[in-house]
Amino acid sequence: MEDQSSKPIRCKAAVCRAAGEPLAIEEIVVDPPRAYEIRIKIVCTTLCHTDITFWQAKVAPAFPRILGHEAYGVVESVGEHVEGFAAGDAVVPTLLSQCDHCPSCASEHNNLCSSVPITLAPGMRRDGTTRFRDAQGNPLHNLLAVSSFSEYTVVDVTQVVKVDPAIPPKIACLLGCGAGTGVGAAWRLAKVEPGSSVAIFGLGSVGLAVAQGAKMCGASKIIGVDLNPEKEKVGEAFGVTDFVNPTQIDKSSVSEVISEMTGGGVDYSFECVGLPSVMTDAFRSTRTGNGKTIILGLGNQTDLLCVPALELLFGKCLIGSALGGIKPKTDIPILAEKCMSRELELDGLVTHEVGLREINTAFDLLLQGKSLRCIIWMDK
Amino acid sequence: MEDQSSKPIRCKAAVCRAAGEPLAIEEIVVDPPRAYEIRIKIVCTTLCHTDITFWQAKVAPAFPRILGHEAYGVVESVGEHVEGFAAGDAVVPTLLSQCDHCPSCASEHNNLCSSVPITLAPGMRRDGTTRFRDAQGNPLHNLLAVSSFSEYTVVDVTQVVKVDPAIPPKIACLLGCGAGTGVGAAWRLAKVEPGSSVAIFGLGSVGLAVAQGAKMCGASKIIGVDLNPEKEKVGEAFGVTDFVNPTQIDKSSVSEVISEMTGGGVDYSFECVGLPSVMTDAFRSTRTGNGKTIILGLGNQTDLLCVPALELLFGKCLIGSALGGIKPKTDIPILAEKCMSRELELDGLVTHEVGLREINTAFDLLLQGKSLRCIIWMDK
Repeated sequence: MEDQSSKPIRCKAAVCRAAGEPLAIEEIVVDPPRAYEIRIKIVCTTLCHTDITFWQAKVAPAFPRILGHEAYGVVESVGEHVEGFAAGDAVVPTLLSQCDHCPSCASEHNNLCSSVPITLAPGMRRDGTTRFRDAQGNPLHNLLAVSSFSEYTVVDVTQVVKVDPAIPPKIACLLGCGAGTGVGAAWRLAKVEPGSSVAIFGLGSVGLAVAQGAKMCGASKIIGVDLNPEKEKVGEAFGVTDFVNPTQIDKSSVSEVISEMTGGGVDYSFECVGLPSVMTDAFRSTRTGNGKTIILGLGNQTDLLCVPALELLFGKCLIGSALGGIKPKTDIPILAEKCMSRELELDGLVTHEVGLREINTAFDLLLQGKSLRCIIWMDK
Repeated sequence: MEDQSSKPIRCKAAVCRAAGEPLAIEEIVVDPPRAYEIRIKIVCTTLCHTDITFWQAKVAPAFPRILGHEAYGVVESVGEHVEGFAAGDAVVPTLLSQCDHCPSCASEHNNLCSSVPITLAPGMRRDGTTRFRDAQGNPLHNLLAVSSFSEYTVVDVTQVVKVDPAIPPKIACLLGCGAGTGVGAAWRLAKVEPGSSVAIFGLGSVGLAVAQGAKMCGASKIIGVDLNPEKEKVGEAFGVTDFVNPTQIDKSSVSEVISEMTGGGVDYSFECVGLPSVMTDAFRSTRTGNGKTIILGLGNQTDLLCVPALELLFGKCLIGSALGGIKPKTDIPILAEKCMSRELELDGLVTHEVGLREINTAFDLLLQGKSLRCIIWMDK
């Protein structure tokens, strides 16, 4: 049997050549996986708002670049020292590593692996290089060391999660970032308690996944906050029990409305927008004494989150997380199982499906607020 | 036996007539306790930096006022509906209520009683009135519904903690605010884990109590940060293992120094100063992935705490608390026991002792940074 792992693969990818420009479908070369790396044949991928943030160059600009970090695929070949994976395995690549050996992975409170730490740098995490070249042989930068807008990609073994091949591919790929983050934030990070109250600022995919996570944890009141009136109905399907449209309130602030609805504020507030002013609103909407605000939205790199110090002193808490606090290799398989048993209902997040050649349509839909997740199929 | 509870008591108190002015020892009248109230004969009290904050009118100004909220005393008489207390009981009044019946008291995560909630308003919490009058019959405002700079005071039953009369009075009175806050913040709020690293910004009484709490919890590295070089030696006696003087560093920031000392930042950082810039430094000194910053310092009422949003997203957490997250009636007796068994060594916090007439000396000493806690004895 020929050793596939030793050869570069020519395939198609959507390349972002400059900030804000439509992606170009190009033939590229994907080098073989090096030590501790896995080359994955992507089955489908989705567009997450974080891709837009990087595409707009709001954070860590680096072009030309292959975006994409929510995906499902099959192992094509593995590099040296890769254990536990073989060609044909169903996998979800993720932006976070999990080595399972470092102090961070050993701690139950930390999901940021310190042996292969997440960075916003545009290369592979162990050596900073890329496995992608364009037709002219020039390197193409990575995104979050995943870069799934390509028929093939190479990902570090610590960033690859094996999943049950029975899970529908389009559900599996949601778990790698947005839905995993939302459900995880309620379940693992906030540890939402039965009977508690929750506010979710921004009912995009992450916010709706928070609602599903909060429902799964038994929250009794789940308040959705969004400027788009259509989100009221969308939210209901995900477990949102009450809706606030900030443009249609008779109080001076959303936090006042939420305080009145809940007798003093919610137990948990989730910011899924990435705007500092919304983060402050989310914070102010929580209950004195034990209100927890969870920040999930990624805005501009230099954004400052400001809250009244005195209000914090009255027993409030602000928590940030990457991937909603989940440990990818531990928790994504559990979430996949919960999806298959229908304990989690994430199907509604998939509103559109296109082929790789129509990937710019996915950008348009998300930018216009018309889609939640648009699945991009590689073989279409 | 005559019913003492029905009569006003004439006694001495230190009255603050205007912001920043020396207190005046005046003869005042203390009304009998109303329903759910306890009149306490104060044995000793101390001056906490929070008294200074209110004295300087940085927060919720209201004059004339009787300051003081760290004290130890003996029950003189009780009002209607007071159960579980009798004249002669040894007690510590506190700024926080604990009714033991409301949802907040029932929750293990919340120490802010919602039936008699803490406010910065200058009266008793149930009716907003005061039990103090001056010689002319004019009302004297309360501080945090404690007002212990008086030979007698009236406190709500939810704010009175019964303690073992064997505890030395001057140790007992420390537990009601500063030391309880510091030890509690490490023990109850941060839940410092054995072998972990801690940074404490500001080695005043609260910061030194944090050090004792962190030591009690088994922290292996306890870094003290203070501008005063003399605090290095003081800190050692409380368990501080390393010292950083921000004016004597060769890096651009304290957080860089701490990151280098700890291989990436401390697990827990405590801000005990009350300055927004120090709060940000404390936040930046914590470890990516699970760094917890606990805010204990009270600054100006309008202070904003600002942190880089992106840094929060990498798994960091900011927690504020009143009284270090302890529930007064549950935890102060436990802390008192730990003091008596020498598991906690707080004696070193008492650096000075004066009589009520010399109370302004206690202010001078604290303002000049010469004292930690100055005990003010009522009978001297």
